[in-house]
Amino acid sequence: MAGPFAFDVVRRDAGARLGRLRLAHGTIDTPAFMPVGTRGAVKGVTTASLAEVGADILLANTYHLHLRPGDDLVARAGGLHRFMGWSGPVLTDSGGYQVFSLAARRSIAEDGVVFASPIDGRRHRLTPESVVDIQARLGSDITMVLDECPSWPATEAAAADAVARTARWAARARARFLTLAAGGEAGVPRATPGQGQFGIVQGGTWTALRERSVAETLEVGFDGYAIGGLSVGEPVEMMYEIVGHTASRLPEDQPRYLMGTGMPDDLVESVARGIDLFDCVLPTRNARNGQLFTRRGPMAIKNARYAEDTRPIDPECGCPTCRTHSRAYLRYLFVAGEMTAATLNTLHNLYFYLDTMRAIRKAIEFGTFAAFRRAFLEAYSRQPSNV
Amino acid sequence: MAGPFAFDVVRRDAGARLGRLRLAHGTIDTPAFMPVGTRGAVKGVTTASLAEVGADILLANTYHLHLRPGDDLVARAGGLHRFMGWSGPVLTDSGGYQVFSLAARRSIAEDGVVFASPIDGRRHRLTPESVVDIQARLGSDITMVLDECPSWPATEAAAADAVARTARWAARARARFLTLAAGGEAGVPRATPGQGQFGIVQGGTWTALRERSVAETLEVGFDGYAIGGLSVGEPVEMMYEIVGHTASRLPEDQPRYLMGTGMPDDLVESVARGIDLFDCVLPTRNARNGQLFTRRGPMAIKNARYAEDTRPIDPECGCPTCRTHSRAYLRYLFVAGEMTAATLNTLHNLYFYLDTMRAIRKAIEFGTFAAFRRAFLEAYSRQPSNV
Repeated sequence: MAGPFAFDVVRRDAGARLGRLRLAHGTIDTPAFMPVGTRGAVKGVTTASLAEVGADILLANTYHLHLRPGDDLVARAGGLHRFMGWSGPVLTDSGGYQVFSLAARRSIAEDGVVFASPIDGRRHRLTPESVVDIQARLGSDITMVLDECPSWPATEAAAADAVARTARWAARARARFLTLAAGGEAGVPRATPGQGQFGIVQGGTWTALRERSVAETLEVGFDGYAIGGLSVGEPVEMMYEIVGHTASRLPEDQPRYLMGTGMPDDLVESVARGIDLFDCVLPTRNARNGQLFTRRGPMAIKNARYAEDTRPIDPECGCPTCRTHSRAYLRYLFVAGEMTAATLNTLHNLYFYLDTMRAIRKAIEFGTFAAFRRAFLEAYSRQPSNV
Repeated sequence: MAGPFAFDVVRRDAGARLGRLRLAHGTIDTPAFMPVGTRGAVKGVTTASLAEVGADILLANTYHLHLRPGDDLVARAGGLHRFMGWSGPVLTDSGGYQVFSLAARRSIAEDGVVFASPIDGRRHRLTPESVVDIQARLGSDITMVLDECPSWPATEAAAADAVARTARWAARARARFLTLAAGGEAGVPRATPGQGQFGIVQGGTWTALRERSVAETLEVGFDGYAIGGLSVGEPVEMMYEIVGHTASRLPEDQPRYLMGTGMPDDLVESVARGIDLFDCVLPTRNARNGQLFTRRGPMAIKNARYAEDTRPIDPECGCPTCRTHSRAYLRYLFVAGEMTAATLNTLHNLYFYLDTMRAIRKAIEFGTFAAFRRAFLEAYSRQPSNV
């Protein structure tokens, strides 16, 4: 495509890909993890701190920003980057997932989705086209199409319907995106230079549906492809199988984004299946709930065993929190309900996720990803007891 | 006294003093403002960020830390500085003010105060001696005696009783402090090298009581003197009068600390009356409530007028928040209830307070404090309307 959006796979190793993704606001190395700043801020953390712990691309949400403060306001303020005070790349999720989880408060039709705002109850309508327009006004680097994400568990028929509608909406979204990019048409917002657009593959846990969704999404043609509708409650092995099955059918020369996943071992396993981009609320949300990630597994910092533990969360970690504070202090802050606990815990968890991605990239570069993966999974346990 | 505690007034100008206060964990320039980290953390802000906005001494509270996590635990963790991850000086308030404001939940006797913990209801006793011991275990640079702080308004008789009891407790606290400093006695904690102890002058708004309290506190003899029992509800002009009256009767060669004050103009006015040290929750608490300080006055960031205001809070401010974010963004974050609002607002307000102190010190150094004071008060309004 025209403009700066570009992706190169620079190395392949044991199913994993090392890539360079050139975006309007900078080039990032992949596989990459995007910290989640749903409403235009990562909770409790400044943008300077995000850069300090190694973030180079953030995720924000079209749906939330459209409702408040409004994409018009953001556009008038100079776009999302300037508004957030973040000069690096930003991906905006479409908000399809959020709208569909409103359940009783939304109605879905072929044209789009109508829903009541959880903020003030006012009715809003999102269509495949309006979601493109909103993201043009926000000016994000990577935009996502409006998709239909069925809840888990879904019937095969519901999943098939979602695949079909997602494909029809994808065609409309792409047409709109190209119209904006061509520019000059009256009544549409100006395209953001270099903005990319990703399609989303649905299909639940049915490989045949995933295949159909891949084919239909590829037929539309996007700058990159996301795998949606996973990490919604299905067993982890099933998720891995679908990720592998789907990723292997996506173009070799375009970025692949696994949406909303996951635990640290999910990242490693999905990279091994050819995924390039991730986002997830786990490191930030769990930090606020007192769950801290280490290479041996998660740690529930409120546990009394840490009350007098003067070690850092992870002695091998180089994050600002581990360089400065003990488990004893972090436990105390969390138990006392001090909001500084959320800030310090979030910095640690994000550093852990981003440092894991750095290690993954280094391993791919050196051709040692298979060994890295083995060692990581051997050390890492989802049970907190052995930390 | 022995050890590193030392104070020198290096310049006097228009009632103000420029000083150097040498403490166990570093030397600070006065007049100085101490950000409040009551429970061992400034809410929503890391110690690295505190240093970045210019903090060089923090305040923590003996009472809160005694209740949780416990001074024994802090001592075993290596003392308060290591526990908090803050290598600079720390002053610990005694907690007298907090205990006395428990009202129904405490009983006061000559020996000390008995109260029920707001955390778990367990009964605790604080005596002049135990408060010294607790602070020895915490290892703070400046310790405060246990005083009796009557609520506002108080009768003259109640204020006189508080002065008398504060003086008797001061003598006991000083004796205990000197016993610890002499070392070696069985059953007492080890003194912290270089720790200083301040006495507290009470007396409400009665100048005669203040004079009596000054005389009795000086007779005991401390490393520095605090003025307590102000900013508790009395009119601001009355406070200024008592500050001036009291400060002028304190030793010329020792530090003077005005406890729990105040608004930005209170700092300037109190420096003009010879105060060297301040602490106050206003910059941090009001930040969390959306009140931002500027040199023209406070700003209620939730105000709709800021919804599209792309200017920084204060165009003249060099804080991380003003260098990065607009009023529009900060208003949005605050209205949306994003906790990052508290972090960014706190950084700004603390920078404003600490930068004001820097400007005050520079003015004293250049012999221009009278002009600075005039200009500051002319520009600053407590009304938010003219920002």
